Amino acid sequence: MTSLASPFTDARPAERLAELAAHLRPLLGDEAVIEDPAPRYAGDTAVQAPDGTAFLLVLPADTAGVQEVLRLAHETRTPVVPRGSGSGLSGGAAPSTGAIVLGLERLTRIREIDLLDEVAVVEAGVITADLSAALAPHGVFYAPDPASARLSTIGGNVATNAGGLHCAKYGVTRESVLGLEAVLADGTLLRTGHRTIKGVTGLDLTQLLIGSEGTLAVITAATVRIRPLPVARRTVLARFDSAGAAAEGVNAISRTPVRPAATELMDGPTLTDIDAHTGSELARGESTILLIELDGYGIDEQLADLAAALTAAGGTVREIEEEAEAEHLWELRRSGRGSGAGGHRLGEDVAVPKSRLGEMFEALPGIGRRHGVETSAIAHAGDGNLHPSLALPRSEDHAPDQLPAPLLAAADELVRTALALGGTVSGEHGIGTAKRGWLDLELSPASRDLQHRLKTAFDPHQLLNPGKAL
Amino acid sequence: MTSLASPFTDARPAERLAELAAHLRPLLGDEAVIEDPAPRYAGDTAVQAPDGTAFLLVLPADTAGVQEVLRLAHETRTPVVPRGSGSGLSGGAAPSTGAIVLGLERLTRIREIDLLDEVAVVEAGVITADLSAALAPHGVFYAPDPASARLSTIGGNVATNAGGLHCAKYGVTRESVLGLEAVLADGTLLRTGHRTIKGVTGLDLTQLLIGSEGTLAVITAATVRIRPLPVARRTVLARFDSAGAAAEGVNAISRTPVRPAATELMDGPTLTDIDAHTGSELARGESTILLIELDGYGIDEQLADLAAALTAAGGTVREIEEEAEAEHLWELRRSGRGSGAGGHRLGEDVAVPKSRLGEMFEALPGIGRRHGVETSAIAHAGDGNLHPSLALPRSEDHAPDQLPAPLLAAADELVRTALALGGTVSGEHGIGTAKRGWLDLELSPASRDLQHRLKTAFDPHQLLNPGKAL
Repeated sequence: MTSLASPFTDARPAERLAELAAHLRPLLGDEAVIEDPAPRYAGDTAVQAPDGTAFLLVLPADTAGVQEVLRLAHETRTPVVPRGSGSGLSGGAAPSTGAIVLGLERLTRIREIDLLDEVAVVEAGVITADLSAALAPHGVFYAPDPASARLSTIGGNVATNAGGLHCAKYGVTRESVLGLEAVLADGTLLRTGHRTIKGVTGLDLTQLLIGSEGTLAVITAATVRIRPLPVARRTVLARFDSAGAAAEGVNAISRTPVRPAATELMDGPTLTDIDAHTGSELARGESTILLIELDGYGIDEQLADLAAALTAAGGTVREIEEEAEAEHLWELRRSGRGSGAGGHRLGEDVAVPKSRLGEMFEALPGIGRRHGVETSAIAHAGDGNLHPSLALPRSEDHAPDQLPAPLLAAADELVRTALALGGTVSGEHGIGTAKRGWLDLELSPASRDLQHRLKTAFDPHQLLNPGKAL
Repeated sequence: MTSLASPFTDARPAERLAELAAHLRPLLGDEAVIEDPAPRYAGDTAVQAPDGTAFLLVLPADTAGVQEVLRLAHETRTPVVPRGSGSGLSGGAAPSTGAIVLGLERLTRIREIDLLDEVAVVEAGVITADLSAALAPHGVFYAPDPASARLSTIGGNVATNAGGLHCAKYGVTRESVLGLEAVLADGTLLRTGHRTIKGVTGLDLTQLLIGSEGTLAVITAATVRIRPLPVARRTVLARFDSAGAAAEGVNAISRTPVRPAATELMDGPTLTDIDAHTGSELARGESTILLIELDGYGIDEQLADLAAALTAAGGTVREIEEEAEAEHLWELRRSGRGSGAGGHRLGEDVAVPKSRLGEMFEALPGIGRRHGVETSAIAHAGDGNLHPSLALPRSEDHAPDQLPAPLLAAADELVRTALALGGTVSGEHGIGTAKRGWLDLELSPASRDLQHRLKTAFDPHQLLNPGKAL
């Protein structure tokens, strides 16, 4: 260890990484230490490190291995970028030169499923959909369902406090995590939380780690809440003349006692795009769809109350009786990304108080016109979370591998509009590097100072995912 | 300010407090600064400061006043004990000599109720039941319902992450708080969180402040989630031969898709005590009652599934059809404290994984025998949270104003038993001063060190509720 100990040696990054690799190989096994990683490990879905970024990929097989990596990083003051499956949308997993990318993808055990305590203990690298598949035969489910569930990991979901379609009824990831196993910056193991819904012993470190994007500790396992599968499910499609009218439909639902499991809004341009890519026939001009899932007891009463409210609000309501058709519609929704495929596209993620959804949709075409970009949007309308899509046709004016300036300018106006409506910079994707520039618009200097002090309390040498989130 | 500035002057506490009072009076008004407070301000329901403890009571009328108090406390290094209504059960509001007790009881505005965003913005001093009363005419409710709801404040509920009867279905206070207004130790105003269920910008300071028992900041207002009143409610009484059999009944519910709004267990001695104090006729030997509330859509289907499961588990199930009888039963439950009134009594608060409830009830009589104390228990059984009651007849062996040693010894064994079953030191009452002695049994040194570092990041001079919770 001596040759590596404390502040960076003068060795060049490549040589330094080779030293780290040589140290870790006997501890973790050759297969866990990769000096020439595949390109995908240089980032996530949104942001890739520049070509030539030199980093070491380490894939430990268990929590003890994660501790070894962090101990070494601590002693050698090496930055560490924790990584799930790289499905992130904000750049949280992109390394800088000289960093260790610490992948959790081999921590794939579901350690426990307890139906009476209604918890599962799941390692960080478990794919979210694999957890669902393991739970289904027991008649239970894990509620958070980011659209990336087939790619993303539980650890990544916890680190970003991932959302999804079912949050208005079941909450975001935060509401389904009761405890964590994590490794601190110096390699110390930390267990937080409980196996119970209640528990107020000390500060709630579990909740602080959720959504911290790998900047405070490396999450290795989570105790998550599981719930009984609903006794019934029903899909309803309601069509409105415009996105604004559909937003009024969302308000109409808020005035009833019905709380759908999912309320997804797809505007006209989004439907046109889905049709073009899948052969579906959803679009009719400006008309906008609310795709709604009801679940639980009393499904017919729920359906009656919902349909009455939506019809009174001007919607044309159709219950989808064929299960295959319902599944197909949900699949189309999950694949829907808004218009602009084939060109440059920027997928946004803002949330507004849900009564302001209509104003957000009204603002969208103006933003598009002012910056010369195509706009469309889908929304998890039940919780006010929009994913506007900003697009430009591919042209020689713009470098193919960079986001053109008009898209970035439109995104800036979009985020500022959401904030002006009382909303937030990121509903569910996280800040990463992609949204750091807007943090000051939402958080006061006092809040940011405090967050930096908390970061330092966890990670005094600023080694964990430096430059992200805060 | 100069005469007060920085580390304690040599003045004796009483003189020092008079100086602080003189400084605050012109800022906050005479009525807000009380040098000779009523005795109740010296603590909470569980713990009172010793006679002769000299403290200054300050009752600002608004957030700006709270900032003035904290600015002065910061400059003069004066400890501050935040206080709601003093209904706490763990000693969180007891001052030491020289402290300012900062009461939030005049911050009683409900600033906003928004039915479409499904939020209310509520000041810290609002009594929880008053919020419920204000919401009811709109057809909505605030879910957390500590048994103290008619006494306790929203600020106190947030500071202790209060629980109650409806948590297994609706979550604890944490799950109903979206954002906070708080004042930091130096008087800086901090706003955290969102008006939306989703929002992942920065570290989640909202969640860290919830349950921090006044040690990190003083909460002045909360943005809370409100929900539609359920379309139907039904009360069910199920009687089992023993507490162990009733715990099996709880497991039987876990195997169904029904999730009651409340599942309250009252054991034989508790029922006998309730009968003795209210004239009710609930007790029949060792037999134990589960008092259950169902709510929502499909109430008849829910009732059928529930009754089938409880009957199969050996329970005698009766639906309470008369609303007056149902209300009376819930009132008896809320007033129930377990046996031992008239003598010395210690009300405990532990939680265990809910499948272990039966083991906890089995252990209780042995603990009682070994320490010569009477035991009984009620439980929020749906979330594994027990409130065992430990009691001794009043006798000349024990000072009337102190908890006798056998009660404390029995409580110690009880807490250790809960921890051995995978449970927690405090389910919902908090740590305060009453439970600090057990913290080391639950939290690792790494966790406690980290919590102290976080505390220091918020409150470098250790002025906020010193000696509590951590």
